[in-house]
Amino acid sequence: MDGVEMEPFKKRGFASDNNAGVHPRIMEAIAQANQGHVVAYGDDPYTEAAIRKFKETFGEETEVFFVYNGTGANVLSLQSLTHSFQAIICAETAHINEDECGAPEKFTGCKLLTISTKNGKITIEQIRPHLHALGNEHHAQPKVISITQATELGTVYLPDEITAITRFAHQNGLFVHLDGARICNAAVALNVGLREATRDLGVDVLSFGGTKNGVMFGEAVIFFNPDLARDFKFIRKQGTQLASKMRFIAVQFEALLTDHLWRRNAEHANTMATLLAREVRDITQVEIVQSVDANAIFAKIPQEQIQLLQQEYFFYVWDEEQSIVRWMTSFDTTEEDIMGFVSLLKKVLG
Amino acid sequence: MDGVEMEPFKKRGFASDNNAGVHPRIMEAIAQANQGHVVAYGDDPYTEAAIRKFKETFGEETEVFFVYNGTGANVLSLQSLTHSFQAIICAETAHINEDECGAPEKFTGCKLLTISTKNGKITIEQIRPHLHALGNEHHAQPKVISITQATELGTVYLPDEITAITRFAHQNGLFVHLDGARICNAAVALNVGLREATRDLGVDVLSFGGTKNGVMFGEAVIFFNPDLARDFKFIRKQGTQLASKMRFIAVQFEALLTDHLWRRNAEHANTMATLLAREVRDITQVEIVQSVDANAIFAKIPQEQIQLLQQEYFFYVWDEEQSIVRWMTSFDTTEEDIMGFVSLLKKVLG
Amino acid sequence: MDGVEMEPFKKRGFASDNNAGVHPRIMEAIAQANQGHVVAYGDDPYTEAAIRKFKETFGEETEVFFVYNGTGANVLSLQSLTHSFQAIICAETAHINEDECGAPEKFTGCKLLTISTKNGKITIEQIRPHLHALGNEHHAQPKVISITQATELGTVYLPDEITAITRFAHQNGLFVHLDGARICNAAVALNVGLREATRDLGVDVLSFGGTKNGVMFGEAVIFFNPDLARDFKFIRKQGTQLASKMRFIAVQFEALLTDHLWRRNAEHANTMATLLAREVRDITQVEIVQSVDANAIFAKIPQEQIQLLQQEYFFYVWDEEQSIVRWMTSFDTTEEDIMGFVSLLKKVLG
Amino acid sequence: MDGVEMEPFKKRGFASDNNAGVHPRIMEAIAQANQGHVVAYGDDPYTEAAIRKFKETFGEETEVFFVYNGTGANVLSLQSLTHSFQAIICAETAHINEDECGAPEKFTGCKLLTISTKNGKITIEQIRPHLHALGNEHHAQPKVISITQATELGTVYLPDEITAITRFAHQNGLFVHLDGARICNAAVALNVGLREATRDLGVDVLSFGGTKNGVMFGEAVIFFNPDLARDFKFIRKQGTQLASKMRFIAVQFEALLTDHLWRRNAEHANTMATLLAREVRDITQVEIVQSVDANAIFAKIPQEQIQLLQQEYFFYVWDEEQSIVRWMTSFDTTEEDIMGFVSLLKKVLG
Repeated sequence: MDGVEMEPFKKRGFASDNNAGVHPRIMEAIAQANQGHVVAYGDDPYTEAAIRKFKETFGEETEVFFVYNGTGANVLSLQSLTHSFQAIICAETAHINEDECGAPEKFTGCKLLTISTKNGKITIEQIRPHLHALGNEHHAQPKVISITQATELGTVYLPDEITAITRFAHQNGLFVHLDGARICNAAVALNVGLREATRDLGVDVLSFGGTKNGVMFGEAVIFFNPDLARDFKFIRKQGTQLASKMRFIAVQFEALLTDHLWRRNAEHANTMATLLAREVRDITQVEIVQSVDANAIFAKIPQEQIQLLQQEYFFYVWDEEQSIVRWMTSFDTTEEDIMGFVSLLKKVLG
Repeated sequence: MDGVEMEPFKKRGFASDNNAGVHPRIMEAIAQANQGHVVAYGDDPYTEAAIRKFKETFGEETEVFFVYNGTGANVLSLQSLTHSFQAIICAETAHINEDECGAPEKFTGCKLLTISTKNGKITIEQIRPHLHALGNEHHAQPKVISITQATELGTVYLPDEITAITRFAHQNGLFVHLDGARICNAAVALNVGLREATRDLGVDVLSFGGTKNGVMFGEAVIFFNPDLARDFKFIRKQGTQLASKMRFIAVQFEALLTDHLWRRNAEHANTMATLLAREVRDITQVEIVQSVDANAIFAKIPQEQIQLLQQEYFFYVWDEEQSIVRWMTSFDTTEEDIMGFVSLLKKVLG
Repeated sequence: MDGVEMEPFKKRGFASDNNAGVHPRIMEAIAQANQGHVVAYGDDPYTEAAIRKFKETFGEETEVFFVYNGTGANVLSLQSLTHSFQAIICAETAHINEDECGAPEKFTGCKLLTISTKNGKITIEQIRPHLHALGNEHHAQPKVISITQATELGTVYLPDEITAITRFAHQNGLFVHLDGARICNAAVALNVGLREATRDLGVDVLSFGGTKNGVMFGEAVIFFNPDLARDFKFIRKQGTQLASKMRFIAVQFEALLTDHLWRRNAEHANTMATLLAREVRDITQVEIVQSVDANAIFAKIPQEQIQLLQQEYFFYVWDEEQSIVRWMTSFDTTEEDIMGFVSLLKKVLG
Repeated sequence: MDGVEMEPFKKRGFASDNNAGVHPRIMEAIAQANQGHVVAYGDDPYTEAAIRKFKETFGEETEVFFVYNGTGANVLSLQSLTHSFQAIICAETAHINEDECGAPEKFTGCKLLTISTKNGKITIEQIRPHLHALGNEHHAQPKVISITQATELGTVYLPDEITAITRFAHQNGLFVHLDGARICNAAVALNVGLREATRDLGVDVLSFGGTKNGVMFGEAVIFFNPDLARDFKFIRKQGTQLASKMRFIAVQFEALLTDHLWRRNAEHANTMATLLAREVRDITQVEIVQSVDANAIFAKIPQEQIQLLQQEYFFYVWDEEQSIVRWMTSFDTTEEDIMGFVSLLKKVLG
């Protein structure tokens, strides 16, 4: 890498769990898969093996499709559940609403009906009024409720909260999509398995996240109702999300689902967030504004010190007006990172 | 990888250049990039370095965007050049027409105006009649000519053939997109550099292929006119083709453009195709039906022997009715592969 | 209409059956409906009455939706039958392919698979090869066969020709859409009723044309399988084709279906075309190049005389290179029009 | 109209200004245009004359396109101003957000960024936060501000309120679209001309409403910046909104703009609303909840009496939970209608 200024690489931070690299076990799996020829586009034994792991995890009737990234997983999931005249209900803070540059609208043609929340979680009381439109051709027809677990605000739905939504959805002819970019962190937080955290709660389709949990690239779309998956291979291909050298996505997930690597990575990230939260509670100028359920901390800190802090540890400002920042931990966050950051915080804000 | 039946991996074949794995130098670059934290989505020094390499190759005013795959590169390129009421002119055999499950239509809303060809190459005589529609609101308005180099039939446009098209396009207010999934093979075939093979011939936007030339995943969209690139970062994000851990695409291209790896890989693949073509010319039951310009051979062989051959070396039937098959070579094809296959062909067909 | 140069209005012509005005009985029906208040968007007794007439004509289980125009009827029909990854098979000359500025692609996201024909009619031999793609995710999946009756070339499918297509379609899981912009002319040509010309032949969805047969504005989308119509009211609204003052479309169709006005109008137009065809057969410089089955004549005439003819009777050149012109007759074409034009033809070309 | 139950037609109501029929002068213009042949799709002297009237009204550099209806006018206007990765800012109550079944999303691919309002009017203070997203590829890029005048809540923006928005928009590189389904009522309310109410305030594109002001069908899209109109004829055709017998839309607008018919119709409707508002102010159980600026009254009335009232005069419930109803007046509302309704209200609610 001649000519590359290497200095910046050294910098650690709490900007995002996708600023981390790739877990060594996953990198190793990739390297091992790099031998000989296999059929492209997923008709290969690596992909078969990875799908088998998913079926062991979520149940036999599960249908699994690998895609490149979270936005792809989300919008193609939604496309498989909707017609253009329908609507998708979600939190205002949902990644599909806030962070995908309008991809859901472009891919599905649907309207997003958003719900303002305090903690990123929506309830059936908030969803219900949107169903008044059902049957009235002048209004986009609600068809999917999309929730994020863990949420974009670092909170985690309790199982009962999800069950209430899926039951309500199904009673009204709607589907439930779960954006699981951080589903592993949520399962760890709830101390349940992946199946207990998703399928068993009535979720119809899951965007299963890998990238934020140690994977290089790749997510999985998982259908718990095989009927819904019938056309997905076409939707994925037309949606530009079919990888030709599929084996290199598949083996990453095979590794992630082996020896509970998914759990160990997520557990570590969550633990680091808990540690950071505990350590900063003493600092009076730091006010934690969301429940620290998974691997994110949202904190209100004095605006004038933010830049100074960012010079040593990179992180994002979430809400400029309220001076709220976000600190994400990841599988590779170290106690040293936490302690270094805490002592910086104390020095700057103390 | 317990539980995976490893036998099939041993099988070599000529099915596609994306059935090969990843070139060792590229795998090494990936491994080296896996350290510490860098900002996601491309705002990192690896990506900066890779873009610098592209600018050295194609010229300073070039704008470069990494995406996941060839379909993504093609359809987002086309989207950046069109409005939905316009049309894209291409060969009937073009990947964008035949092999992307209608992705160009979905992403752009445009009509594809296809031209029937003998060898995958289109000419201005064939393009011209489509321009009668210009200005008439009842017809989709031609706006882009998309050509593939090397073509899907393994042939290569001569520089003058491309210049004729780009000049004609620009005189009529159209853009030229080049699907360069195998542009490296074409440049090698023409014995010119990458810039001479594209920008210098008047091409506006290039899908620069990596996956078929030793990359794990990733292609680049290259704009030779920066004005056309103005909105591309939004188009890429909305199009689900923005990688979060971008560094792992970037370093692959950085490696590909270092020490002429792109050329050496393509040269090898082309040489292997030439070798195979030479060796089978003696076999009377094998009729090569397209000029072997790059790394593909299209041959007519007796239908009844095809399955027998496929059992030992995997390849695809291109045209069942005419019994034409396709043999692709790649950066990792060996002389031993060729000779083994040739002797099988002689045994079975001789 | 002060300030309007009235001269041009006097000019008669054979340009198109939508250059004619509105049949007096239909104009009268419109005027009569203009009293008092009725609920907008079709929930009114006029619309109910018109739908009842359609059900009497086509059978009780028919579902009927009024839209503004033929392009609207076609693209929304197609949208109701497809997903974006699917494909629509049609003749190259089909209105949906040639004359709607790419509307089908924009509305459906689908690819159009076109068939080159001599007379505007397609056959299952031509359709069959397109079905090779079924099941292969790299290719758009054929789902609809769209035929036009009478065709854009003035020819009429025989009932058996349509039955062959609908049977083939249904055997292969495809639907058949019929663009019936001139279905009345076709039914008259075949000497059958409207139901015999459509539903009884196995057609799934019909764009029933009014505008070219004496209506001011409005077409009807008719589903012969009510299941397919389930979502159409939403598709129509989102597709901008739901008229607020619906009664003024409905009464036109009510009048068209009363006392066989549809038949009388079409019969007259067809008769005039037959007359014109008979009269010009003597003129050696006029070569009729398509069978005159309905109300259109396609003729090859000397290029240098076309403009001179157009100065007195307006019509369109269909194919400039081959010097083929199109003469359409309509419900208001008179024998005087025909004879005047014939004597001009004889004078200019004789 | 044999077989039609005529009783319901007699019923008068306040449901919507498009439950009314067609103004006699407009019906007369339609009848007069029904003679002879004219070229279809707008290349005729009637359309030319109508466009000339618009240019006299709004200024020479205006570009005018007729379409079928308001939804068509709105979504095609928006499509002409946007790319799919952009966003449209509007009030939550905007017709484009609430009443078009998601048509804007389908046609443009854009996200709608909605603003909650008390009276249907938005302000730059509410718009400004949405511009934080500008330049950030993860967020849909605001490009158009769409306002409705008169609003869907019957209120009217003051000229200064609109100027503030258009100035702010242009300073930030955004366009302003005005949904003028009831722009005539607003101009009358403000006592200004149509140009003063739109173009002179900095509006870029106007959906000029006809249907709610005495027209049978048809709206006009008016561009005050001809550059923005360059592609609109293609957008209109692909958008299924190009009428073949265009003359019958054109003459309606020609009549509407002749002898101030637009003003007289709107003035009458507004006056009737004012009268109704004045008459019900005494009734204690009727609480008018929005300023009665144009031809709509929003009133809170006791829920249990609503059905009884609707049996004699049809109108819609706007907000079931709050028991708010909407009463619209139109060009054909009579003082008798008002007085009859008021006395019913007094009888039922008094």
